[in-house]
Amino acid sequence: MRTVYWDNGVVKLIDQRVLPHELVLLGFDDYRAVAQAIADMVVRGAPAIGATAAYGLALAARQSAATDRAGLLCDLDAAAATLLAARPTAVNLRWALERLQAVAADERLDDPDDLRAALLAAAERLADEDVAVNRRMGAYGAELIGDGMTVLHHCNTGALATVDYGTALGVIRTAHEQGKRFTVLVDETRPRLQGARLTAWELQQLGVDFYLIADNAAGHFLRRGGVGLVLVGADRIAANGDVANKIGTYKLAVVARENGVPVYSVAPTSTVDLRLAHGDDIPIEERDAREVTEIGGVPIAPAGTRVKNPAFDVTPQRYVTGIITECGIVYPPFEVNLRRIISEGVSG
Amino acid sequence: MRTVYWDNGVVKLIDQRVLPHELVLLGFDDYRAVAQAIADMVVRGAPAIGATAAYGLALAARQSAATDRAGLLCDLDAAAATLLAARPTAVNLRWALERLQAVAADERLDDPDDLRAALLAAAERLADEDVAVNRRMGAYGAELIGDGMTVLHHCNTGALATVDYGTALGVIRTAHEQGKRFTVLVDETRPRLQGARLTAWELQQLGVDFYLIADNAAGHFLRRGGVGLVLVGADRIAANGDVANKIGTYKLAVVARENGVPVYSVAPTSTVDLRLAHGDDIPIEERDAREVTEIGGVPIAPAGTRVKNPAFDVTPQRYVTGIITECGIVYPPFEVNLRRIISEGVSG
Repeated sequence: MRTVYWDNGVVKLIDQRVLPHELVLLGFDDYRAVAQAIADMVVRGAPAIGATAAYGLALAARQSAATDRAGLLCDLDAAAATLLAARPTAVNLRWALERLQAVAADERLDDPDDLRAALLAAAERLADEDVAVNRRMGAYGAELIGDGMTVLHHCNTGALATVDYGTALGVIRTAHEQGKRFTVLVDETRPRLQGARLTAWELQQLGVDFYLIADNAAGHFLRRGGVGLVLVGADRIAANGDVANKIGTYKLAVVARENGVPVYSVAPTSTVDLRLAHGDDIPIEERDAREVTEIGGVPIAPAGTRVKNPAFDVTPQRYVTGIITECGIVYPPFEVNLRRIISEGVSG
Repeated sequence: MRTVYWDNGVVKLIDQRVLPHELVLLGFDDYRAVAQAIADMVVRGAPAIGATAAYGLALAARQSAATDRAGLLCDLDAAAATLLAARPTAVNLRWALERLQAVAADERLDDPDDLRAALLAAAERLADEDVAVNRRMGAYGAELIGDGMTVLHHCNTGALATVDYGTALGVIRTAHEQGKRFTVLVDETRPRLQGARLTAWELQQLGVDFYLIADNAAGHFLRRGGVGLVLVGADRIAANGDVANKIGTYKLAVVARENGVPVYSVAPTSTVDLRLAHGDDIPIEERDAREVTEIGGVPIAPAGTRVKNPAFDVTPQRYVTGIITECGIVYPPFEVNLRRIISEGVSG
């Protein structure tokens, strides 16, 4: 089952807020509700958000009552703005919308129904490509996992964070499918516990050996536990290789480097934002205080407690050993090699 | 109200497991139940555990049916062994028991009732001294807090972690009482959430300005948020200055140093274990998996998830800027200056 798919005019999403306790599918027939679902984290994970936005735009085209191309394009612009505003940090959302808008820009699509069909086809293609891209990243990255290794993983980067298969967890999955034997330490990833809820669930289904840990314990194991590799995803990568990713990635990467443990970010080239020179220009989303003060609706802090809740942080490139893309593993100097891999499709 | 006190033959403890939702006092008239309460974390915090163990030994003396000194000493040895086994990492437990056992060693206490009275008096003295020691550490440490500063704090080190007043939180409290204006970022401190549950509650009562953060967010604020000081407690400090403290301290200290933010451990000299050359000999307690897989009894991970749950980690001395004790602030070289402050009571 895919995390996001199109079902006869309805965008279907696995509700990631209720996993692992329940597996619930939600259907959306209004692009505004799709945008809200992205904002509410029914769906999360940069590639999954991108594909959802693409389907959302195809849905907006279907909803539009426009009878000519110009009217439909106006409606699409409004819908794209709504979808784009759903979450600020992951660039895949913008990338997916721009890709569909480039399809829409083809003036040969003069008949609105042709344009609607073309947008849906483009969204389907984008989703299919996401799966293929993940498998290629998995193949490149699995080379880094040796038999007997302990791999530390942050957040969820699996099938649930993508259309299917996963980015960093896709690497782990490929290595597992290759018959390698290794152990994964799973950061629970507060505040939303994507590691405890989603990654643990996915690894359990795959039969990969893992232990769940509090994020606080990662340092102990990096220093004393023989961790050989840290794998994370990315929500946006700047042109210089700075990686915006789930909050806590920066802390993890600093401590990994301090202990000589390599840190790889696994992300499709659609996550790379060459328009940004460095990561400190990446907008960091601040989310609801209740993500910190409540767990499962149960308060864990005194009433009236104020919170700071950045959802992402930026890991400066000097803490990143390499970036695993669908075109190969990119190593420093990232300024040169990211640009080259995107223009030439050749590993730096 | 003190965290632990003696009330007419009963050891009274604030039940720290149910705070901040309820303020419950539990009474114990059996030293074995006191040991279990330490193991179950009814009471936690190295100094509070020490005082509780001291009262527990006084309680054991009272419970003993021995009619002569030799018989009572046998019972005390058994009780001390039970209390000592309750938790392995904090050295204050052993220190407190050894202090009472030194009192018991006075052969002039030939009458068992005299010995019982002397032990209770010693426990009361130890508890009173803990409060006085905390106030002195507060005065030394408050010098480090400047107006307008942001201070980052891990775990709970307040009145609840001690008999009263607190260690690292005692420093914050003193600075607040001095009229300084500053902000505290409170690590929630998974897995047991002592920051969210206990530190937030204490700071709220004191009227100190604070924000609660997920532990994962600390790196973001160390890098970008103008944090001026990191304050933590300690459960055991080795002769070379390595600090065993609540899990996550190591990660925090590494990232603080990487960003040029000073890290101070606030701990009475009773926390220093000169018998250990370095921190890697400190036993690290592994606690129940449910601390990670459940929050407030509600499961957050799939059934069957395996866990690694070290309760403490060791921060090597090179990440520790200074150690704030009741005799002054100790700076490197810790090997020399810790030993000197303990033998001479003069700041290194």
